[in-house]
Amino acid sequence: MISPKDALRLVLDATTELPPETRDLPEVAGLVLAESVCADMDQPPFDRAMMDGYAVPQGAAGTQLPVVELVAAGQASTVSLTEGECAEIMTGAPCPSGTWAVVPKEHVHLDENTVQFPPQIRERQNIAPRGSDRRQGDAILQPGDRLDPLAIAVLASVGKTSVRVVRPAKVAIVTTGAEVVSPDRQPEPAQIRDANGPMLSAMARATRAARVVHVHVTDEMDAITDTIARHADFDVLVLTGGVSAGRFDFVPDALKKQRAEIVFHKVGQKPGKPLLFARRESQLIFGLPGHPLATHFSFHRYVATAIHKMQGQAAGRPVLTGRLTKPVKRRKDRTAFVLGRADDRNDSGGIPQVEPLPGRSTADIFRAVAPNCYLEVPTGPDSIPAGDPIQFTRLDPI
Amino acid sequence: MISPKDALRLVLDATTELPPETRDLPEVAGLVLAESVCADMDQPPFDRAMMDGYAVPQGAAGTQLPVVELVAAGQASTVSLTEGECAEIMTGAPCPSGTWAVVPKEHVHLDENTVQFPPQIRERQNIAPRGSDRRQGDAILQPGDRLDPLAIAVLASVGKTSVRVVRPAKVAIVTTGAEVVSPDRQPEPAQIRDANGPMLSAMARATRAARVVHVHVTDEMDAITDTIARHADFDVLVLTGGVSAGRFDFVPDALKKQRAEIVFHKVGQKPGKPLLFARRESQLIFGLPGHPLATHFSFHRYVATAIHKMQGQAAGRPVLTGRLTKPVKRRKDRTAFVLGRADDRNDSGGIPQVEPLPGRSTADIFRAVAPNCYLEVPTGPDSIPAGDPIQFTRLDPI
Repeated sequence: MISPKDALRLVLDATTELPPETRDLPEVAGLVLAESVCADMDQPPFDRAMMDGYAVPQGAAGTQLPVVELVAAGQASTVSLTEGECAEIMTGAPCPSGTWAVVPKEHVHLDENTVQFPPQIRERQNIAPRGSDRRQGDAILQPGDRLDPLAIAVLASVGKTSVRVVRPAKVAIVTTGAEVVSPDRQPEPAQIRDANGPMLSAMARATRAARVVHVHVTDEMDAITDTIARHADFDVLVLTGGVSAGRFDFVPDALKKQRAEIVFHKVGQKPGKPLLFARRESQLIFGLPGHPLATHFSFHRYVATAIHKMQGQAAGRPVLTGRLTKPVKRRKDRTAFVLGRADDRNDSGGIPQVEPLPGRSTADIFRAVAPNCYLEVPTGPDSIPAGDPIQFTRLDPI
Repeated sequence: MISPKDALRLVLDATTELPPETRDLPEVAGLVLAESVCADMDQPPFDRAMMDGYAVPQGAAGTQLPVVELVAAGQASTVSLTEGECAEIMTGAPCPSGTWAVVPKEHVHLDENTVQFPPQIRERQNIAPRGSDRRQGDAILQPGDRLDPLAIAVLASVGKTSVRVVRPAKVAIVTTGAEVVSPDRQPEPAQIRDANGPMLSAMARATRAARVVHVHVTDEMDAITDTIARHADFDVLVLTGGVSAGRFDFVPDALKKQRAEIVFHKVGQKPGKPLLFARRESQLIFGLPGHPLATHFSFHRYVATAIHKMQGQAAGRPVLTGRLTKPVKRRKDRTAFVLGRADDRNDSGGIPQVEPLPGRSTADIFRAVAPNCYLEVPTGPDSIPAGDPIQFTRLDPI
């Protein structure tokens, strides 16, 4: 049985970034860039007025000048300013050639068609010079950049309406169990409804995976082997149930039949001790225990972290430190991971207050009120008292 | 000109929760429940074996018993255990009537078809009793609960395959400006490409809004008025550009023509001073300045926060406290909001380290490297030094 730390390292060691693919701009939010992007032209592409006002030539300070043109945004100026004249200009419009400064309309006095200028005008004031944000050819985004809304704005501004990104993962979820029926069916006696399939589908979609499918198979060796075979083209295969050592726990043998290499089986953690991790060529295969909390935790710590790395998003989930609001029990034998709620508002000088939300059993998904993290509780005697530091990882936002 | 604090309060005061609607389970992740959900049956629905092993009647400790049945998960037991016999049982299976405890298979000795039991067996050990997670009729989810993957598991387990949720918002984004062309077009001299439309669409989708549309109109009173009229059935209307006091800034007058009530216009903040907020019946209308950073900030602070409240997700964005890694300049006249990067890993005892990422101008979206928050810099002389506390709000995750 290996430690949760070693298990995570083995998963990440086996995980490589997916190849790039081309996507249209509306479909790239949250993905990771796989090319360098350069400015296709100077930005701004012209000397741009930053205020509504008047473009003036040198020597306009303190004088009264006639307006020879109105330059609106989007409109090229047709005149060249010379001494003794000015042009009315709008924010965003290109300055006429010969412009020395732009004077805001609030600072002038209008008199019929002439304008009285203030005694002080600073050279280039209220002008964003051509190329001042960046020059044509400047690299403005790099491979590995996460495409947040600001990066999307940058791509749009240089005309990149389709772009190379790290391909998001294809994830297949296979729930097993003869006792499990679809949530839209009324369970017979001895049956329960499938909670893991909908839960894991939501968790997989939260990673920004491109494709998430869910199938359910019964506990039969042939059915499980066949399902593993049919999902060979998915980057990640997640099975739930059937990984303990029971008479109907066919997953390990089915994986061996499919020539998957089992990297580890059983981890010193609670919940999720029977966790299995295997690889088949570049495919990662996770066998999660069937109890909902064990499934949830194992997906959070191992599967989602691997998907993030595949998608270029991060090479590991940040481990944060907070302060316990309540004592939390340690176990002598295994690291305990406990759902919790981290409150990082400013009542405590910025240190997150972390409340453990322990369930009573690994099947108990009903008592955890709005958890947003997992606390990592190291092995040891007794409890960790309230007020002590505790490490935690945040759940993926939904 | 009102303060950013008053502006946010006025926006939230005008924002009410949207009415409920019914959605299928795969479409509810991240939304907010609008009904109470009760358990439709006891959970577990039967005394469930929690280990692979043997169901035994009372008095089995230290004895050797024949196996009279194999109970697999999903299968109802057909026997009633009596003294002197036991049943092999799988994790998840219902215990036969008469079961006193379940003994893990690791703790027994097998001999042909009889089983030697250990000298100590605890009553009810390894049995999850019927109804121990919850009783039929227990309320298990409440209106207002956010539907994270665990809540989705709970819904599935009680057969709620469609559910009442607070309706997610419909958001229309209207970019304006005669100088602005679509990102897929080559700008003429004096033109620039639209960066705000793709950026705001991505930001709106990150709020979990149900529908996001984007149209561009030129700076003409009729076109703007008509566009406002045609988008009356959206919950939120976001216009960019045209809100200053320039000759072509038609948005305020177009809103008045459409009988929208202007709640405020101009806020003591940088970026985004010309921000306008109006209402038309229950529709919220935001007029954002056209500079990309001002647009980004205004959407983050005001529009997204209103959408979250509409969708029942939160009544305000948490204001967090961190520690500055670099000095940040204050302004005498307006609260400054500066993009930043909060690093909340554990190097500093849990207090987030916040690095300001100031751009050079409100149009400069090219210098902000992977921001994840906005710092709020109060007015005052000079700078706030490195190491001092700073308040910040996180960007919505993408």
